[in-house]
Amino acid sequence: MEKKQTIIIGAGLVGSLLSIYLSKRGYPVKIFERRSDMRKTDMVAGRSINLALSDRGIKALEEVGLMDDIRKICIPMHGRYMHNADGTTAYQPYGKEGQYINSVSRGELNCKLMDLAEQHGVEINFNQKCEHIDWNKNDILFEHVATGQRTTNNGQLIFGSDGAYSAARLTHQLQQDRFQYSQYFIDFGYKELNIPAGENGSFLLEKHALHIWPRGNYMMIALPNMDGSFTCTLFFPFDGEVSFAALDTKEKVKTFFEKTFSDALPLMPTLESDFFNNPTSSLVTVKCFPWIREDKFALIGDAAHAMVPFFGQGMNCGFEDCSVLNSLIGKHDENWTKILAEYQQLRKPDGDAICDLALNNFVEMRDKVADPRFLLQKKIEAAFSKKYPDKWIPAYAQVTFSPHIRYSQALVNGQKQETIMQEIMALPGIENRWADEEIEKMILEKIKG
Amino acid sequence: MEKKQTIIIGAGLVGSLLSIYLSKRGYPVKIFERRSDMRKTDMVAGRSINLALSDRGIKALEEVGLMDDIRKICIPMHGRYMHNADGTTAYQPYGKEGQYINSVSRGELNCKLMDLAEQHGVEINFNQKCEHIDWNKNDILFEHVATGQRTTNNGQLIFGSDGAYSAARLTHQLQQDRFQYSQYFIDFGYKELNIPAGENGSFLLEKHALHIWPRGNYMMIALPNMDGSFTCTLFFPFDGEVSFAALDTKEKVKTFFEKTFSDALPLMPTLESDFFNNPTSSLVTVKCFPWIREDKFALIGDAAHAMVPFFGQGMNCGFEDCSVLNSLIGKHDENWTKILAEYQQLRKPDGDAICDLALNNFVEMRDKVADPRFLLQKKIEAAFSKKYPDKWIPAYAQVTFSPHIRYSQALVNGQKQETIMQEIMALPGIENRWADEEIEKMILEKIKG
Repeated sequence: MEKKQTIIIGAGLVGSLLSIYLSKRGYPVKIFERRSDMRKTDMVAGRSINLALSDRGIKALEEVGLMDDIRKICIPMHGRYMHNADGTTAYQPYGKEGQYINSVSRGELNCKLMDLAEQHGVEINFNQKCEHIDWNKNDILFEHVATGQRTTNNGQLIFGSDGAYSAARLTHQLQQDRFQYSQYFIDFGYKELNIPAGENGSFLLEKHALHIWPRGNYMMIALPNMDGSFTCTLFFPFDGEVSFAALDTKEKVKTFFEKTFSDALPLMPTLESDFFNNPTSSLVTVKCFPWIREDKFALIGDAAHAMVPFFGQGMNCGFEDCSVLNSLIGKHDENWTKILAEYQQLRKPDGDAICDLALNNFVEMRDKVADPRFLLQKKIEAAFSKKYPDKWIPAYAQVTFSPHIRYSQALVNGQKQETIMQEIMALPGIENRWADEEIEKMILEKIKG
Repeated sequence: MEKKQTIIIGAGLVGSLLSIYLSKRGYPVKIFERRSDMRKTDMVAGRSINLALSDRGIKALEEVGLMDDIRKICIPMHGRYMHNADGTTAYQPYGKEGQYINSVSRGELNCKLMDLAEQHGVEINFNQKCEHIDWNKNDILFEHVATGQRTTNNGQLIFGSDGAYSAARLTHQLQQDRFQYSQYFIDFGYKELNIPAGENGSFLLEKHALHIWPRGNYMMIALPNMDGSFTCTLFFPFDGEVSFAALDTKEKVKTFFEKTFSDALPLMPTLESDFFNNPTSSLVTVKCFPWIREDKFALIGDAAHAMVPFFGQGMNCGFEDCSVLNSLIGKHDENWTKILAEYQQLRKPDGDAICDLALNNFVEMRDKVADPRFLLQKKIEAAFSKKYPDKWIPAYAQVTFSPHIRYSQALVNGQKQETIMQEIMALPGIENRWADEEIEKMILEKIKG
C-alpha cells in the first residue's frame, strides 16, 4: 500500500518526534516550521521552562529507539529540594527508590530530535508560516516569514503540532461548524532566570534534584543543565502588590530577592539584567474539539491540549499522543479514518484530564501550600501510601511514573482519594490521632467502598 | 466638548439601538454592516428564532423613546400554551396579572431600528466586512463583500456589536495578550418552520401565548406574527436516534411529526419543504474577557456574551448593555476611560450569569422536564411563591420581569432557592405532605437563614 504524503506543521518536540514515528513506518514526511532553524542560530533564550522528561515521554522515545541518544542530555532528578523562606531546606523524593524525572533543555532536546528526524529522511522546512489549509484539496498555504513568498504544499495526511497558539488549529476552527474551544489564562506569568555553573562546570546546588523556593502565593524553581548551570523559572502574579508589575526597577528586584530568595540571590549574578531582558510569558490552558478531520488531519501535542506547566506533563503528554497514534496505525492497518477517530476518542479525555490536573496543581500551589491542614492531609496520605503502596498511589506518581494508568483514570482516582481524605480530615481531633491504627483501618475501608 | 467620532460594527438589533443612544447624545455615528440592507432585499428567512421582548429590553427602548413605535409590531404573550404528546393542552401564565412578554419578528424589529437610527442621523454602510482594526491608529479596515474594495475608516470610539461570531472580537482577540475566550456549542440545533395564517389573517392557534410542544429530549415552540402566522422553531439533537441526522427524507419527517406533533402537523402545509430548505443552525455560548480597550473600544451584545436562546434574553441583555452604557456616559461625564471600565466591570458578571442561566434552562429542559420529582419541586415553588410573592420570586420572573435585579443577582438568588428546594425535596414523604403548613414554615425559615 502506498503511504500517504504527510505534512507536519511545527518542528517542535512533538512534531519532530511524530515525524520519526511516521518515517520509520515508511511515510514520506515533510515538516514546515515557522521559526528559523534553531541549530544554526542562537537559541531562543529566555522563554523556556526547562523540561522534566518522565516515564510517559521516555516510553515514547524508547519505542522509536531514541532514548539512548536522549539520555545523554538528561540529568536525573530524584526529588524536590525545597528552599524555605527561613533559610532551611528539605528534600522530598519524587517516588519510590529508583523513580526519578529528568531535567532536559527544551532547546537541546529539540535540536537532537530534529537531527534524528533528518537522519530518518524527514525534510524540515524553516521560516514557513501556515496561513491557510484548503480542506477540499488538502492544500496548505505557507508564507516565508522573511521573503513573504507563498507556496502551496499538498498533504494527504496533515498534522498540526504547532503548539498552544497553533495556526493549524485556527484554520481548522474557522472552517469547522460547532468547534468547541476555550483558552484560559491564569493570572500568573513566568520569567526565566539563571544560576550559572561554578568553577570547572561544577553545580552550585544539588545536581540531582528539582529545586523549589515555595513562597505561598508564588514560587521559583531551578532545574540543572548539563553545563553545570541551572535554569530558574519564577512563577509570579502579573499584577498586584507582589507582582511583575510591582517589580519595575532593578533595585526593587534586588531588594525583593534579598528578602525572599536569600540563598539563591548570591548564585544569580545576572539577576537584574535577566529580569528585565527576559520576557514575562503567560500561561494558558487550551481545550478544543474536534481534534481531527476525516482521514486527513489531526491536532497533536499542545495544539490539541495546551496546559499550564505545574505537573511537568506538557511534553510527556504530547509524546504519549505520538505513541498512542502509532499503536493505532498498527491496530487499524493504516486505515486513517479509523486511526484518527480512535486517536481522538482515546486522547481527548486524557488531554482534558491532564489539563485539569495541571490547573489543579496550580490552584493547590497558590492557595493551599501554606495551609497546615493541607500539609497534614498530605502527610497522612504519604504515610498511608508508604505502608500500602499498591492500594494508594499518589496522584503525582500515577501521572509521572505510571504510564499504564491513563490520565483520565488518574484524575478519577485522585478525586476518589481526595473525597476519602476530606472525610478523614473532618474527623474530630484528626491532627492528634492521624497515625492511629483506627484511622488506617478507616482509610482501608473507604478504599474498598 | 467635541464628541468622539464613533463607529459601530454591526447593524443588528444591538448595534442599531446603540447608535440611537449615542446619536441622541450628539455623537456622530457610522455603522458598518457585513450584510446587505435587509430593508431592500428579501428577508433572510429560515434562521431567526422569533424574539421575546421583555422588561429589560422594553426599559432600554423606552429610555430612548422608541417603545411606542416598537409596540406596534409586538404581540403580547401572557403565558405558555403547552401541547402535550397525548393531545391535551395546558396553559401557564408567565407571571402575575399584567406580566407578559412580547413576540416580535427579528427582521421587522431590526428594520424598524435601522429606520429610526437613520432618522436620528446615523449613517449605515452595508456589505462592509470588518477585516482588521489597527489599535494604535484606531483605523478599521473594511472590505466590500461584493466588490472586494477595501476602505479604512477611523473611529475614536469603536463598538463591536457584530454578534456571536464577531469579526471585531476576533481582531481584538488576536492582538490581546491573555484574552480569555470560550465558545461552547450544545449538541442541539434549531430549524425554523411555519404555521401560516388562516383565512383573513386569522390565528390558527391562541394568539397571545408562546406555544410549546415539550417532548422530553427536544421541543418545538411557536410564536405569533402580526400577519396571523406563527414562526415555529424545532430544537432538536443534531445526531442520534431521534435527530436532524436521522430525519433525512420527507417521509420520515412527516411520519415523525404525525406521531410527535400531531396537533401541529395539520397547520403546517409546507413542513416538508421548510424542513429541507431551511438550514439547521447551531447554538453557542460565548464568553470572553476583556470586553474593552482603553477609552476606545467595547464589545456589546452577543459579540460580548452569546447565549443559547432558552431564557429568551439574548436581545434583552444586549439592549440592557446599551442602557447601562448610556447611564455611565452620564455618570462619568463622557470620560470614556471610566465609562468603559465600569461598563465592563458591571456587565461582564451579568453577561456570564445570563449565559449560565440560559444554558441551565437548556439542561433543565433536556434532562428534567419529564422527571416527576422535578415537576413536584416546581409545583411546591409555585405554590409558595403565589402565597409569598415578595419572599420568593421565581428565577424566571427575576430575569424576565424584574429589570432592577441584576442577572448576576438573579443567578445567586436562584441558586439559593435551588439549595432550599433540594433540602425540602429530600424530606421523607414530601410527595404526600408538600402542601402542609409545616413545609411552608420550613421554607420560610430557610429563606431567613
